[in-house]
Amino acid sequence: MGLIVQKYGGSSLATPEHIRNVARSVAAARAQGNQVAVVVSAMAGETDRLLNLARELSPLPPEREQDVLVSTGEQVSAALLAMALNGLGCPARSYLGFQLPLRTDSSHTKARILSVGGEKLEHTLRQGIIAIVAGFQGVTEAGDITTLGRGGSDTTAVALAAALRADVCEIYTDVDGVYTTDPHICPKARHLEKIAYEEMLEMASLGAKVLQIRAVELAWKYRVPLLVKSSFGSNRCTWIVEEEKIEMENAIVSGITLDRNQAKISVIGVPDRPGIAYRIISPLAQEAINVDMIIQNASSEGFTDFTFTVPRGDEHKARPLMEQIAREIGAREVRIDNGIAKVSVVGIGMKNHPGVASRMFKALAEHNINIEMISTSEIRISCVVNAHYGELAVRVLHDAFELDRSPQK
Amino acid sequence: MGLIVQKYGGSSLATPEHIRNVARSVAAARAQGNQVAVVVSAMAGETDRLLNLARELSPLPPEREQDVLVSTGEQVSAALLAMALNGLGCPARSYLGFQLPLRTDSSHTKARILSVGGEKLEHTLRQGIIAIVAGFQGVTEAGDITTLGRGGSDTTAVALAAALRADVCEIYTDVDGVYTTDPHICPKARHLEKIAYEEMLEMASLGAKVLQIRAVELAWKYRVPLLVKSSFGSNRCTWIVEEEKIEMENAIVSGITLDRNQAKISVIGVPDRPGIAYRIISPLAQEAINVDMIIQNASSEGFTDFTFTVPRGDEHKARPLMEQIAREIGAREVRIDNGIAKVSVVGIGMKNHPGVASRMFKALAEHNINIEMISTSEIRISCVVNAHYGELAVRVLHDAFELDRSPQK
Repeated sequence: MGLIVQKYGGSSLATPEHIRNVARSVAAARAQGNQVAVVVSAMAGETDRLLNLARELSPLPPEREQDVLVSTGEQVSAALLAMALNGLGCPARSYLGFQLPLRTDSSHTKARILSVGGEKLEHTLRQGIIAIVAGFQGVTEAGDITTLGRGGSDTTAVALAAALRADVCEIYTDVDGVYTTDPHICPKARHLEKIAYEEMLEMASLGAKVLQIRAVELAWKYRVPLLVKSSFGSNRCTWIVEEEKIEMENAIVSGITLDRNQAKISVIGVPDRPGIAYRIISPLAQEAINVDMIIQNASSEGFTDFTFTVPRGDEHKARPLMEQIAREIGAREVRIDNGIAKVSVVGIGMKNHPGVASRMFKALAEHNINIEMISTSEIRISCVVNAHYGELAVRVLHDAFELDRSPQK
Repeated sequence: MGLIVQKYGGSSLATPEHIRNVARSVAAARAQGNQVAVVVSAMAGETDRLLNLARELSPLPPEREQDVLVSTGEQVSAALLAMALNGLGCPARSYLGFQLPLRTDSSHTKARILSVGGEKLEHTLRQGIIAIVAGFQGVTEAGDITTLGRGGSDTTAVALAAALRADVCEIYTDVDGVYTTDPHICPKARHLEKIAYEEMLEMASLGAKVLQIRAVELAWKYRVPLLVKSSFGSNRCTWIVEEEKIEMENAIVSGITLDRNQAKISVIGVPDRPGIAYRIISPLAQEAINVDMIIQNASSEGFTDFTFTVPRGDEHKARPLMEQIAREIGAREVRIDNGIAKVSVVGIGMKNHPGVASRMFKALAEHNINIEMISTSEIRISCVVNAHYGELAVRVLHDAFELDRSPQK
């Protein structure tokens, strides 16, 4: 018995039949004596349908109006799920962002949550009524509708769980949790029962698309226990919890991720002077191009090579900027390579186990996979390799760290 | 130059191409130096699509949730039209019911407007920005979304025009105005340039489906000049204005209406005692059955016949009530006839021209159309006839009052 926040994604709400199934699952949680608040996404395909309508009318629709438009998707889901629950004899009420209110800043299409009003929900839940909240949407102080960016419903759910001091935030999706790596790439991928917030954050930001990164950050900040579950019948699930709740000695590496969505830019023959890194990187920031890995080689005869990665697609915007900078600072050449992949090993256990990097490099070397760039954090080691070898690298590392075996209990 | 409120119905907004056409029409009104506020309905078919989803989930969806659901239709239209206008280089902003706010009572699915906040709109219009308002929706004091009932966007438009003290409220629809009668029934039907609020009210309530009756009432109350126009290119239109603005001597009868949606109930052989009418009618009011015409014949030997009409379909609910009452008061029999039609002639000019009724009865008699019931108001005479003769009666009366000819100027 407790207070549960559940979140259902678009694929779990794709049709009236799906919605009825979700209603049964919600009703079951309530029947066990829990107070239940549910956050819903738009029905699968609905957001794209709306955005296509928008694009037919304006190549660059005003973002304020785009938010008014797409927020209807979650509104429809919330009303329909409330109806389905009432149809099962479970009292339920829908709430929109402006009704809570879920206040955000005014950055339309990618707003940040400022506060969540939980009073109405608490009152509703205390009466034994299920509260259905439209995800993804908020309202500014001025009363304008905003949205939180794609996948924002996860963030809504965690923010709500924090505001209501929920016992758990259950994220229902089309997979049954987090795996050691993508099972489509590596058939030996193993399901994880538990993972630390910090690990999940590295996994999420590196391409494991189970959870929105902002949702994990928020859950970590407010210590909201997260549970990722399939809404399609599997009994397995993954807990995302505090590091202390994980038996640390067991898993050194928890997972392997692959990011194929980056391009590498090298500025070659840069005169090695103070301030060079700033001169190269700052124009990218001004154009809002995200730079991920940055590597500067040791200087040789007063010249160095400067290499970084950007999201694939952005290399076209970056090229003219870099070519101009290269001329200004007297660098020799700009090279762009979008045939790369970033392979990373992630694990809290690394903090206390040296030797992970060397084991990684050895495994790649044994399979003749050349490492083009390396970067590390406290719990992650990433290597950029040729895109052709990306999937092979994942399988090789999965074997090298024996991730198919459960940690000894 | 002035302040114009325009309202576009669902058929005018059916596709992105339609919406672009509406945007051009709105932009043209602004280019003439007007301040323009636009009220939109849902795209044609959208409300039905949403209601069908609802019905799949619950046979009797909670009305609060139904309002949350269907109000998204107008929200989508408002955002898309704002986008289309911005795409044409016309600044435009959408407003939802809760944002104005347009306050209503809490009668979900058929809410009444309590007040319209015009401040935000006035501020927007003064800056030369076009305001797009989602029709049909409002918000209660508690912040719940309500809807005004089908066709409620007309009412939104008139309420807005009243709040903004607009110079005109233009209702764009799929017909080019009001006719002397339904052109599908009577090919000689003539387009009317002007009609008085009071006449339009009688026409609307009697089945001419051009305008919502509540919208006409509201326009009359606040003296909002209404203009009904086609959004599909016709240049003709109909003004709905105060009686004083119409040359009264010209039109004695303005139009003929046909209502096929009633059933007749007769209680035969009722002992003629005081209070009998109340005994018969009050149970119907308790069951929320609308009674339209009521006729009690002169008493003969202490007995009378009591006849009234109800909306077709409600006669089944009314029958057991009437049979019980008949037993209680000692009436002989209850007869129900749903094969009737009500034909009415309407005209402000009748107030000063006796003889309209006799001309009506004469025309029907000449064509052997039997009159089963008669009722009159100051500007209307209605006859119930056998349903088979309803359309013939319309054509006969249209000829008899020479409505195909323009009034002499």
